[in-house]
Amino acid sequence: MSEPMKPRDPDWEVKVRDSFARQSLMQTIGAKIAALTPGTCEIALPYRRDLCQQHGFLHAGITTTIADSAAGYAAFSLMPPGASVLTVEFKVNFMAPAKGERFLARGSVVRSGRALIIVETEVVAQDKGAETPIAEMLATMMCLENTPDRPED
Amino acid sequence: MSEPMKPRDPDWEVKVRDSFARQSLMQTIGAKIAALTPGTCEIALPYRRDLCQQHGFLHAGITTTIADSAAGYAAFSLMPPGASVLTVEFKVNFMAPAKGERFLARGSVVRSGRALIIVETEVVAQDKGAETPIAEMLATMMCLENTPDRPED
Amino acid sequence: MSEPMKPRDPDWEVKVRDSFARQSLMQTIGAKIAALTPGTCEIALPYRRDLCQQHGFLHAGITTTIADSAAGYAAFSLMPPGASVLTVEFKVNFMAPAKGERFLARGSVVRSGRALIIVETEVVAQDKGAETPIAEMLATMMCLENTPDRPED
Amino acid sequence: MSEPMKPRDPDWEVKVRDSFARQSLMQTIGAKIAALTPGTCEIALPYRRDLCQQHGFLHAGITTTIADSAAGYAAFSLMPPGASVLTVEFKVNFMAPAKGERFLARGSVVRSGRALIIVETEVVAQDKGAETPIAEMLATMMCLENTPDRPED
Repeated sequence: MSEPMKPRDPDWEVKVRDSFARQSLMQTIGAKIAALTPGTCEIALPYRRDLCQQHGFLHAGITTTIADSAAGYAAFSLMPPGASVLTVEFKVNFMAPAKGERFLARGSVVRSGRALIIVETEVVAQDKGAETPIAEMLATMMCLENTPDRPED
Repeated sequence: MSEPMKPRDPDWEVKVRDSFARQSLMQTIGAKIAALTPGTCEIALPYRRDLCQQHGFLHAGITTTIADSAAGYAAFSLMPPGASVLTVEFKVNFMAPAKGERFLARGSVVRSGRALIIVETEVVAQDKGAETPIAEMLATMMCLENTPDRPED
Repeated sequence: MSEPMKPRDPDWEVKVRDSFARQSLMQTIGAKIAALTPGTCEIALPYRRDLCQQHGFLHAGITTTIADSAAGYAAFSLMPPGASVLTVEFKVNFMAPAKGERFLARGSVVRSGRALIIVETEVVAQDKGAETPIAEMLATMMCLENTPDRPED
Repeated sequence: MSEPMKPRDPDWEVKVRDSFARQSLMQTIGAKIAALTPGTCEIALPYRRDLCQQHGFLHAGITTTIADSAAGYAAFSLMPPGASVLTVEFKVNFMAPAKGERFLARGSVVRSGRALIIVETEVVAQDKGAETPIAEMLATMMCLENTPDRPED
């Protein structure tokens, strides 16, 4: 996205980071938010041998996991107070083996409608200072109004 | 698929189970092969609180992980000796919250071409004896000939 | 779908056929509704030399066109009075060249939520009495309530 | 793509334009190549009332048609002599009604592998000097070597 997007919730950043912290899977795999702006979210994941497929590369499901969370939080950052985010669907193309020391999923909102938000996420592998694109996701997220992300809110 | 498919490798079952055993992620999350025939593969995953998104449901990335492995091994079961399998791309629709005691991903080959294999995977949640469809994947797998799944082979 | 679905609009059939008749593209290419039940829609298209790609097969865009209309009307058949249907997104796998005398797109609703309806469409080619699957679509349709399909209604 | 891509066939431009001219559907709907470089292809389509859905907007299938041809020819422009191009699959998100005087599909290769080429196509509507994105495609194309696009070659 060229121009910066406008959040509708002044607390968007606290809200996103709090929600991310409650995604138990992110801690299980060791993923962290690396960058966050209204309409974009970047998630970083160091390589771990126990998250792999049969050849020792990161499993496509884990590449997808960080791409989905990056897409979801890019979308959530633009939502009004009291709303929560839902993944409707996504499509992922895998472009190269997920081989590297660290993986970065960069989600960025392509179009933000009232109910549906379209997000693109690129995943890259970082290795010895170089960066290789390994996957590309195109996702549809839904904004559920009046359905707080923290049920107790 | 109505009619049973014909494997091209007499050792297809050993080969699939051996490859699955080398997917470290399957052990990390606690997934197992529940059923296997030429052209189909079913993977079971008991619910675990540390594999969740922010509302305590299974993370969409984990639903996708078992769907992808089920699709990949459904495809791999039909490949000739000496070949390995690669996920080209997939698309997943999420139909209901991933809420349940156990999840089952049922992959089944829709069309098996020379290089590309198209697979559908349905994921269901099982809870108190009932079964709810939670996701539907349509995937493209690639057969890499002369590229053994176990490099030492 | 195994069990028949329940329409929410008693006039569902008239409404679908009337909307289809207003899709000018269907007349331009010569497509017709071949079968219609609540939750399913089948569209037939005879081969025409002027709808082709460079090798004389039906263009993937036309295969997609009839698949999309079949998916959209399968979804629309289940919608309440006063609603209209919108294609959110779809994914199509092409499995064989679109070669034949006639093409049939069979859409069937997989899951009908309040706002979003997930539909699968299979497209087959018919030739000399035989039928070959040529494409598989997985689509997300949206129900726009209080937005009549015929603006004058 | 930031850097220009390198064609592997010196006759890439003649080859692409010749293949496009043999896509009878392009003439039927009135589509033309508006721009062409190695790895990118832009197709323009003026609005026509006989290519519409029920509300008088361009049918999603026609939006997809020009997006698919733009993607296919972006990929084909990078292929070696004697090869032809095949659409393996694509996914399209529709972001706004296809309303305008003219539509432009801009395909650009994201990754070019030996057998598979991944392409993104954006479709925009032009109206009274303004441009609105209406659809986004992520596609997988296949390179069939030793299968000339013109069978007589």
